[in-house]
Amino acid sequence: MSIKIQPEAITSLRGFEIPERLGFGTVMAPVMFRARYQDGRWSDGELVPYGPLALDPAAKVLHYAQSCFEGLKAYRCGNGVGLFRPERNAARMAHSARRLCMPPVPEPLFLDAVRTVASHCATLIPGNSGESLYIRPFLIGTQPDLAVTASRAYEFYVIASPSEAYHAGNMRLWVERQDSRAAVGGTGDAKVGGNYAASLLSIAGLKERGYDQSLWLNPGNRHTIDELSGMNFFAVMDGALHTPALNGSILEGVTRDSLLTLARDLGLEVHEREIDIDDLLALVASGTCTEAFACGTAAIVSPISELGDGERRYRLSQAPGPVAEQLRRALLDIQEGRAEDRFDWMQMVPLASD
Amino acid sequence: MSIKIQPEAITSLRGFEIPERLGFGTVMAPVMFRARYQDGRWSDGELVPYGPLALDPAAKVLHYAQSCFEGLKAYRCGNGVGLFRPERNAARMAHSARRLCMPPVPEPLFLDAVRTVASHCATLIPGNSGESLYIRPFLIGTQPDLAVTASRAYEFYVIASPSEAYHAGNMRLWVERQDSRAAVGGTGDAKVGGNYAASLLSIAGLKERGYDQSLWLNPGNRHTIDELSGMNFFAVMDGALHTPALNGSILEGVTRDSLLTLARDLGLEVHEREIDIDDLLALVASGTCTEAFACGTAAIVSPISELGDGERRYRLSQAPGPVAEQLRRALLDIQEGRAEDRFDWMQMVPLASD
Ligand SMILES: Cc1ncc(COP(=O)(O)O)c(C=O)c1O
Ligand SMILES: Cc1ncc(COP(=O)(O)O)c(C=O)c1O
Repeated sequence: MSIKIQPEAITSLRGFEIPERLGFGTVMAPVMFRARYQDGRWSDGELVPYGPLALDPAAKVLHYAQSCFEGLKAYRCGNGVGLFRPERNAARMAHSARRLCMPPVPEPLFLDAVRTVASHCATLIPGNSGESLYIRPFLIGTQPDLAVTASRAYEFYVIASPSEAYHAGNMRLWVERQDSRAAVGGTGDAKVGGNYAASLLSIAGLKERGYDQSLWLNPGNRHTIDELSGMNFFAVMDGALHTPALNGSILEGVTRDSLLTLARDLGLEVHEREIDIDDLLALVASGTCTEAFACGTAAIVSPISELGDGERRYRLSQAPGPVAEQLRRALLDIQEGRAEDRFDWMQMVPLASD
Repeated sequence: MSIKIQPEAITSLRGFEIPERLGFGTVMAPVMFRARYQDGRWSDGELVPYGPLALDPAAKVLHYAQSCFEGLKAYRCGNGVGLFRPERNAARMAHSARRLCMPPVPEPLFLDAVRTVASHCATLIPGNSGESLYIRPFLIGTQPDLAVTASRAYEFYVIASPSEAYHAGNMRLWVERQDSRAAVGGTGDAKVGGNYAASLLSIAGLKERGYDQSLWLNPGNRHTIDELSGMNFFAVMDGALHTPALNGSILEGVTRDSLLTLARDLGLEVHEREIDIDDLLALVASGTCTEAFACGTAAIVSPISELGDGERRYRLSQAPGPVAEQLRRALLDIQEGRAEDRFDWMQMVPLASD
């Protein structure tokens, strides 16, 4: 597989000035990776200047949401760039693609694309702890045809955003008893647009009511915890770590998996199981559940300070709690190269020489 | 609200040659309507040549499926064009938009847009019974920002496709016991991309196994009938018409509503209720359920000849049956101007003079 670097891409990179305020996911790197799928095969990929996609108004992605995406981070490490477990993102994106009848992006193409973007954008990565390049691969169905059938043509892009540390701070979660983000037998374990679209309404009203995120319950039983709109959920009870077991409607987070590994390694007792929301709230009220946190690529670990259920509010006694702090530090130390990479999670990419 | 007709749009229309084979939803009219929403208000609309949309790669629609759409038909009637109940589509699209936190397209803008497209494309409408202009309004979130929050910028388009009569023919349905298209508390009663994305995998394998469409069950109880991927479901039992009651996960079809009105008017006994799939299959086997059909804007009424459930196949004794035939004729007679428009369903639009 050969990747073409358009000269205009290099020019865009040279002319780019990093704005002072970055935020998270709002400033876009001036280049992007593109590959096309047609007639059953993938084109060579190319690095091109960031710019508008020309999409036919009848493209399937615009009507039938045939799209999936990934999110991962690149960190500045010495004179290279570190990617955190990118092969997990490649595998998850292949899974998401299959769920929507899209051709999975082959792992070598996915990894080459991510590496190409990371190595060319390395100089855009801010250098302070927690700062990173957020990388967003996505795949869309582009065939212009209004039939409700899978597209025959696809485009795969990788865009990137130099980002500040994402301080979600302490989060207050709203227990969402009404809406669902994905169905049992639906697309909850895939990273596809429709799940996020379905979440927006619940999220939208939260701030005014004093909450930051919705806590989604399982759409089948409506009383066990699934996850947040973009993070997985953990709780600490009597010193042991509990997280909802994967059940088909939860996205399998790379951070979730990494924290479970680290927790076991640190000697913590770990339970992946069904967690009933009413049980959890009672344990928070009684003080048995001392801390809870959410995790994901963007925020890494975010302490939860409060759970709201209708009129009632349940406060966690420790936010951030010691377990969240310990796990966050252990993970970040590996990602930023301060600790030994004992689980072989980091992939180093040399800077592009251009 | 004023609509600008770009001179280039008129030129595109003049230069357009209608292909001999039309199909359904594949040939696009050479013009489209566009209006933009920004800073809380709608721009004036304009009719422009059909052509690619320039979308930022980070546009919310591409990642988080913030999009909804409608489908309605325009028929050639004398020296004008007839639209069928377009205000129902306007209302449904407003409902869909709200479900995804999008600003509803105001009814006057929606109707003006559809009328503008219909009147300018009138000469593209083939003249034979069943042929029509299929009109596809859609609304997409365009703000370039990777946060999982509602877009602040939107674009509303109306594209159209001169189409042949859509002969689904007799359909064989596969009872989908595994997958769901939308969750309880999800987006099933809204016409949004994610529902269709979630349907694609079930649909994809059907043809090889001898089926045409999936029959979706309610995602909450997994045993009552909801609908098809793009049509509502009806069955005739002992001469009475039965259809699943609206329950939040079924799209409220305009055709469904119209057929219910016509059926009551024709003196048929009509039941909107929960229909258990196992009960239905038993009634088909025993001969009590004699016919079943699906309905929607595209195919109007499509007889169902067979229901497949795992290894078992249940054949309907009449396909098409007399009730389906009678309702189809009654509806088409109104839509094509042969019968009196007793329910005030048709809106006539004069041809554009250009
Ligand atoms: C729905 C959902 N759950 C969980 C996660 C966390 O996954 P990861 O740790 O791989 O970022 C994400 C974010 O990617 C997500 O969108
Ligand atoms: C899921 C779904 N159900 C039902 C229908 C039928 O609705 P209508 O009769 O308004 O075309 C459609 C098509 O629009 C649909 O997409």
